[in-house]
Amino acid sequence: MSNRNPKVLNKLIENQVEKLPKSQRQFLRSLHQKKYRYQTGRFLIEGLKLIKEAVLANFPLESVYIAPSLYEKLNEKERQLLDIFQEKIHFVTTRDIQQISTLSTPEGIIAVGVIDQPVFKTDNNLSFPGIYLWEINDPGNLGAIMRTARWFGVKNITLSPNSVDIYSPKVVRSSMGSLFFLSGFQNVPFEELCSSAKQNNVMVFAADMSGTPLQSPPTDPWVLVMGSESHGLPPHILTSAVKTIGIPRYGSGESLNLSISAGILIYQLIHSERT
Amino acid sequence: MSNRNPKVLNKLIENQVEKLPKSQRQFLRSLHQKKYRYQTGRFLIEGLKLIKEAVLANFPLESVYIAPSLYEKLNEKERQLLDIFQEKIHFVTTRDIQQISTLSTPEGIIAVGVIDQPVFKTDNNLSFPGIYLWEINDPGNLGAIMRTARWFGVKNITLSPNSVDIYSPKVVRSSMGSLFFLSGFQNVPFEELCSSAKQNNVMVFAADMSGTPLQSPPTDPWVLVMGSESHGLPPHILTSAVKTIGIPRYGSGESLNLSISAGILIYQLIHSERT
Repeated sequence: MSNRNPKVLNKLIENQVEKLPKSQRQFLRSLHQKKYRYQTGRFLIEGLKLIKEAVLANFPLESVYIAPSLYEKLNEKERQLLDIFQEKIHFVTTRDIQQISTLSTPEGIIAVGVIDQPVFKTDNNLSFPGIYLWEINDPGNLGAIMRTARWFGVKNITLSPNSVDIYSPKVVRSSMGSLFFLSGFQNVPFEELCSSAKQNNVMVFAADMSGTPLQSPPTDPWVLVMGSESHGLPPHILTSAVKTIGIPRYGSGESLNLSISAGILIYQLIHSERT
Repeated sequence: MSNRNPKVLNKLIENQVEKLPKSQRQFLRSLHQKKYRYQTGRFLIEGLKLIKEAVLANFPLESVYIAPSLYEKLNEKERQLLDIFQEKIHFVTTRDIQQISTLSTPEGIIAVGVIDQPVFKTDNNLSFPGIYLWEINDPGNLGAIMRTARWFGVKNITLSPNSVDIYSPKVVRSSMGSLFFLSGFQNVPFEELCSSAKQNNVMVFAADMSGTPLQSPPTDPWVLVMGSESHGLPPHILTSAVKTIGIPRYGSGESLNLSISAGILIYQLIHSERT
């Protein structure tokens, strides 16, 4: 690969450029919507950096669409990374990329990933520590929380019903690929989480404005439960928790950003265990 | 105010609706751009929640534009809040609001604020603790950091040259009004911050991937210095710091989100002082 003549290569790419059939374009565009993602079990991963992370995580990718104008700019290492897709890679027109993209200014590469939907079992296929999010609707916050979870070695994120979809383009993008390294359970009622926690001796920490910072490291594996920025957690969840934890307000303001609160609380829990 | 007949009120508003002159509309739209914000010393504050915060902070507002369709939906308390603006309030058409708005789906209320640009003096008009941000360009991150600063009682944010503008609509919005409660210094070279810190016995903490978590509370007032998510801090800043601090990676991933790192580090610094 390393001694490719760029002129020859460009010629080669030009000859390979496919005009996407309308049905295929429609299928790819349909994945912008949750309904079709779950009908087909597929979702979009956009941008080279995210696709690299998916490859690194051995995440199943079905196909990759790339504009020759982007491919020409890639370095040798990046081209080698794409070579592993072999016949799964499609050179398409910039216009086609624009039509299937979830961004207003597409980078030029989009992959189709296979939705990996693990089934939550009460008698436990979770590894703790974990995070349980109750009716979270902001995709940017969910993505940022996943990125933080990965950084701190938290292995799973579980979402209640009525939460944002883990495979929505905005979540995928803001997770910066962390999605591919975590187990994401969806539509899990709090009661199921609680049964699982009870059966497996897992401590349930609930985040609340009234909570105090963690005083001592958790003595057992744990799950951190958080609600949305505007509504927090309902009473029945707060009362089920072993402990309510929070972040003291030394200044003023209504609330912290949800993903920042999550960052501080995960840090408290993880760091106290390690020191 | 409390016994207004809604029909009479609506009539009143209808008669008061102004068609904004083209020049005024152009002036308001020009404030989307940094250049014009600084030429005129004015910036836009959009949404009732933000305007409420500005009022709460006694922040100078020059005028308020509101669509009658929004005014009709306000409760008595919200109307009373707006009453304080008296002749500064203008009822305008929804179309005018759409044209001056910084959002694709405007809420219906926009205020013009007066840029409050304090001058940074080395012999100190800063109150510490503070945060110094080096070449930060993401408005969402800056806004979220300001919100966190306010929550923890950090009183000032100082920005290096080549940073995002504190008065850009996205920063204002994501700060959730914290902007009005903080001193924001802009275009301050790191050398000036350092001189000020030296003259005032202030500890300079620099955030870096190689840093370790804070081991003991700061013994003096401090300033936390952070760089952008992608570039971090340059060597000359890192070597000038009293101490390099960081957040241990117990899992994997390239980096944490900047505003989340800031949240964890500010928490470390503030909380260790208080406990």
